[in-house]
Parts: sequence; C-alpha cells; structure tokens
Amino acid sequence: MTRAYNFSAGPAGLPTDVLRQAQAEFLDFHGIGASIMEVSHRGKAFMAVFEQAEADLRELLAIPNNYKVLFVQGGATLQFAQVPMNLLGGRSADFIVTGTWSQKAYREAAKYGTARLLATTEEGGAFRRLPEVDSLAFDPKAAYLHLCTNETIHGIEAHEDYETRLTERLSRLAPGVPLVADMSSHILSRPLQVSRYGLIYFGAQKNVGPAGVTIVIVREDLIGHAAPTTPTLLDYRNLVADTSMINTPPTFAIYMAGLVFSRLKEKGGTAAMAEINRKKAKLLYAAIDGSDGFYRNAVDLACRSNMNVPFNLPDAELEARFVKDAEAAGLIGLKGHKSVGGIRASIYNAVSLEAVETLVKFMADFRSRNFR
Amino acid sequence: MTRAYNFSAGPAGLPTDVLRQAQAEFLDFHGIGASIMEVSHRGKAFMAVFEQAEADLRELLAIPNNYKVLFVQGGATLQFAQVPMNLLGGRSADFIVTGTWSQKAYREAAKYGTARLLATTEEGGAFRRLPEVDSLAFDPKAAYLHLCTNETIHGIEAHEDYETRLTERLSRLAPGVPLVADMSSHILSRPLQVSRYGLIYFGAQKNVGPAGVTIVIVREDLIGHAAPTTPTLLDYRNLVADTSMINTPPTFAIYMAGLVFSRLKEKGGTAAMAEINRKKAKLLYAAIDGSDGFYRNAVDLACRSNMNVPFNLPDAELEARFVKDAEAAGLIGLKGHKSVGGIRASIYNAVSLEAVETLVKFMADFRSRNFR
Repeated sequence: MTRAYNFSAGPAGLPTDVLRQAQAEFLDFHGIGASIMEVSHRGKAFMAVFEQAEADLRELLAIPNNYKVLFVQGGATLQFAQVPMNLLGGRSADFIVTGTWSQKAYREAAKYGTARLLATTEEGGAFRRLPEVDSLAFDPKAAYLHLCTNETIHGIEAHEDYETRLTERLSRLAPGVPLVADMSSHILSRPLQVSRYGLIYFGAQKNVGPAGVTIVIVREDLIGHAAPTTPTLLDYRNLVADTSMINTPPTFAIYMAGLVFSRLKEKGGTAAMAEINRKKAKLLYAAIDGSDGFYRNAVDLACRSNMNVPFNLPDAELEARFVKDAEAAGLIGLKGHKSVGGIRASIYNAVSLEAVETLVKFMADFRSRNFR
Repeated sequence: MTRAYNFSAGPAGLPTDVLRQAQAEFLDFHGIGASIMEVSHRGKAFMAVFEQAEADLRELLAIPNNYKVLFVQGGATLQFAQVPMNLLGGRSADFIVTGTWSQKAYREAAKYGTARLLATTEEGGAFRRLPEVDSLAFDPKAAYLHLCTNETIHGIEAHEDYETRLTERLSRLAPGVPLVADMSSHILSRPLQVSRYGLIYFGAQKNVGPAGVTIVIVREDLIGHAAPTTPTLLDYRNLVADTSMINTPPTFAIYMAGLVFSRLKEKGGTAAMAEINRKKAKLLYAAIDGSDGFYRNAVDLACRSNMNVPFNLPDAELEARFVKDAEAAGLIGLKGHKSVGGIRASIYNAVSLEAVETLVKFMADFRSRNFR
C-alpha cells in the first residue's frame, strides 16, 4: 500500500503511525473484545481514553487550571453561534474580519446581540493581511473580541508577535475584554499562551484528528451566562457539569485525537512542531518567491500562514494541470478552495518535511516544463 | 483476536465484517493513497461514499422523493432543540412521554414555544408502557406531535400495530398535524412507512454506525420555517441547500454508516432484519419469563422492545455479579443504564442470533448457580 503526500486543507492527513495503531486495534481495543467505537462512552475503556486525551492536550498547550476543556460537535461553524449564545448576554462584541471564517463568525453573532465590525481587511473581495494592531479602537464594554488566528482559505496567520501586540493593546485599552479565537487550522502548530484568551475553539480535522469533534477551551468565569434559548447541549455550563457527556460524544473521533496528542508529546510537543513547521513553510514560500513570478502568493509577508499556503500560477488552465500532474506524482489535496480557486498546500503537523521537499521539487519540475 | 458478544446500548457493536472492511482500507481507501477520513468532504472519493450512503438508506427505508435526508451532528439531544427551532414557529406541539428520552424532548421544546404534555405513562418514576391510542386527545392546531418510538433505557417500543393505530387516529382527529419521531434506537430494525411521519431523526450509534453522526429524514413542506435565532448550521433549509455540507461533516462516521447500509441491503434489508430481530427478542423474553421470577422485565407485553431488553434480578448484588460473570464469559455491555440500574441487553441488528442464544444459555447457568 502506498501513502500519498497529502496536502489536504481538511479533513487533512493524519500521522501514518497513528493510523497504523488505530488499524491494529480496530476490532479489539486492548483486549476488551470490541472496538473502542463499540463500547459505552461511560465505561472504563472509553473513559480512560477520554481522560488521557484531555490530560495530554492540557499538557501540550499548558492549559491553566482555571480553563475547562470541552469536546463538542458541529465544528467551528456551530461555535460561531454557540460562543455568542453563551457569552454575548445582550451586549456587543468586537470582530476582526480577515477572511471567510472570521466573516462567518461575525455574521452569525449578529443573531444573538450586537456584532460590531472592529476591522476588516477585505479589499475588493480579497483578503491579504491582518489589520494593524495600532489602528484598533476596541470597545472597552464589549463582551469579547473575536479573531480567527489562521484563515485556512486565504492563508493568513496571526503569528506570536502579532498575538503579543494585540493582547497587550487589548488589555491596555479594553481591560477585561476577553479575546475569543478560532484556531481550527493552526492549533498545536506552535506554543500558545492560553491565558491570553478567554476562549479558544477548533475543529479537529486539521491538526487534531478526523472530522467530527470540536474542542473548546474556556476560562471558568465565562461559563454560566448562556441565553435562555440556548439548547441544553450547547450551554457550556451543562457541558462542564456532564464532562462533555450530556449525550453520547463522538467517541472514535476523540480516541483518534487522543492518539495524535500522545504522538505529539513523544515528538517534543508544540515547540518541536513549531521548529519543523517554520522550516517547511520557509522552504515552500522560498520556492514560490524564487519562481520568477510563475508561482504567486499575495499575502503580506508578516501574515503568511505556516499552515495553509495558497498560490496561483499564470492561468487557471495551468493550475488545473498542476493539480492533475501532482496527483499523478503522488501529491494530493492541492486544489485551492472553490471560493478562491488556485492552489493551496496545507502543511499541517502531519505533513513531513520530506513531503514539502517533494512538493518543492515537483514545483520546480513543473515550472521548467511549463514556463512560458 | 477474540470478539466478545456485545450487548452495549450505544455506542453499540457493529457488524464484524463491516469493521474488517474499514480496517483493510484504513490507510489507503480504494487506492487514493489516503484514508477516507483524510480527504476533502467535497472531493470525488468522499462524495461517492456520501451519495451511496444516502441512496442505500433511501432504498432500505423506501424514503419517498418528497423527503430530504440530512446528515448532521449533535445526536438526538440536539434534535430535541433543532426540531422545535425549525418546526414550532410560535405554535404549540403535542408530546407523548414514555421514558427518559421523550421527556427530555418535551422539556427542551418548551424553550422555543409551547410544549403540551399530551400523555405521559410515568407511574412513580417508572415507565412501563405506551399510552392507549384511544385515550389521546390531540390538539388539531399543533405544529406537530412528538413520539419516541423506542425508549432505549426503559425498553418500550411502539410496534407496527401501535404506529398504525396512532397515525390513523391522528389523521382522523388532527388532520395535517405531522408526526415527529425519535427512532434512534430501533431505526432499520423493521420495515417503516416513512410517509406516516413528517420528520424522523436518529443518532447513529445503535443500528447505524459509530457515534458522531445523526440522520434527519424530513418532509419538504416542513423545511424553511426556522426561527430567526436558529444557528446557520441547525436550519434544515441551509442543510438541504448545502447537502449537509455547510461545513465539514463527520466524514468517517458517515463512511461507516454507509458500510452498514450496504451490508444491510445484502442481508435482505429491513424485512430480513425484522424477522431475525423478532426471533432474538422472543428467545430472550422467553428466558426471562420462564425463569420463575429470577429474571423480571416489567414492561407491558405489547410494548416490549425488540431492541432493548432491560431486566432485574432478585437484588443489586446479584445483578453486579451477573454483569461481572457475563463479562468473564465474553458477554459485554450488559449493565443497565445508571438511572434505572439492573441489566439491559441491547440486541440491535449487529447482534447475532448466536449471541442471544449464548446469552440465554448463560442466563440459565447463572440462575441455576444462584437461585435461592
């Protein structure tokens, strides 16, 4: 069996050794005579898996004790509603819009209170950057400030220095306003100071595991303020009270996430990931920038994502051929999002340096064959 | 590797040959070089899986063309809110309460309009039956009538004759009021006349697949009436418009459900399942009823579930020993729900006649060893 080099944006490739372990115990988990997906979520076998997954995630992200970790369903898209249902309480929240996902979060929140557009970097339908931190006039009475720290479609990332400057300005000009972040597509790709945030959420299907589980990390004081019409299952207070088991959680997806967390610890955690992720991104952007304009990435240098690298070729016909030839060469998942077209290479934690080296070599070959 | 006889209530056992197939293609699905869980939900490979799963389910349940099939998340518990969000529209709905799950559905709906308790069969905290159909005084102006057709915890099932009498009376006394049913724990266990219902929903983790996907079958005229505060992801109209792909669906869970559907077709569909399920249930209830009171099931004969068979032993200490000895004998998942205690044998489609025969034999042995 051959495994392709997988650059899918999500659902994305998972570490091969994680898949092998899950495959080996697929019909009989640790001698219980059943798959882990075939037993009660409240039974010993799954509870051990569940508790270990949370413990490992807490260790990997150094999550402080005054934060709860919730395993939920519905993806980031349901959090776009669930966060304001739980946090807005008739007030207003500030939104920074830097791409498709933060725009969706902004629009959805307006159903549950006031969503204020603090800043948008949209220019003629395109997004290429984060707003200048110094330009942001926060509402000091806002229920929260919302940011998407990595825009998967546009390839725009808030790196650590941006995060530092943003949170410093926020605590100076709007002290007490919690920062809420959608980190779906770069969580665990680098160390993170959780205490800078009031709430962090992410769908699993990029750096965590298969699609079907979403994780929310929320500071305790933000729990317990849900609107009365919030569904029982979407009230953070209930999720905390029942340890994410108000009803049956997506047990297999949580188990897979746990395997990924465990492997990440063995590999040196988020610091080790950050080092290799920087190396991979540097290599790929260098291949784009050094192509005499054959490959083009339009994102401001300081905001280029280390996870999602969208780029264009001279025309759509060449882009289609690029995707096709790449697939024939064992490089899959390179087609850009339907809303923006072009190419997108997603280079999450599970994508090896070797995979990026192979892609870069393919890009050079393709260019030499097609340069006009 | 040994597979135990698995009587879990859910997440429940899956067909061993389905697990074997998923295991075989776990790292490389049909030569694409990746697991089906590692590729885009909008790509060719998964779209083919997705469309086949829906087509097979439509065939298995003979779903009429004017019904949509939605693959969602959150389990039946989220439908307890999502159904009234979409269907209630400021009106009142009637609820038949026959156990824990229908009670939860009833309580949740009150957040979104008027939930009227049409009938409850609760007696001193216990549930043993469905209400007499002839006693039901429907509200002819109700937005819908809600019923849980199989109460997993209490082992109470609305069989085909009950369903026939209920729907006939409903269409006579309250014509046009759609029947909404939670069928989580007996869907696909017998033939079903979908046209009798306005909406049917079920979590996957009993007869369909792993936990993490929920299926909604909804008549077209009931779509498009969601309350304005309904989250984008929970509005049936949006789910229909984006074919359940407003965001990333739980792809692996859907794939597994598809494998179960395909296998069910090979095995003769719901009619074949009904025959074997009746045989299994008859055998197990006979073992209980013929035990001189050692094993006791308190449900009214006409309402006994063919899927979930709860029973008691003379005391809690014996029940604990029963569970422990059964496990040692390779029979797992027999502990009753924490809210009611006792024993519960769930004998879903994936539980073979051989498994029930083994259980019945174990019950006889256990009784002879412990009869006092």
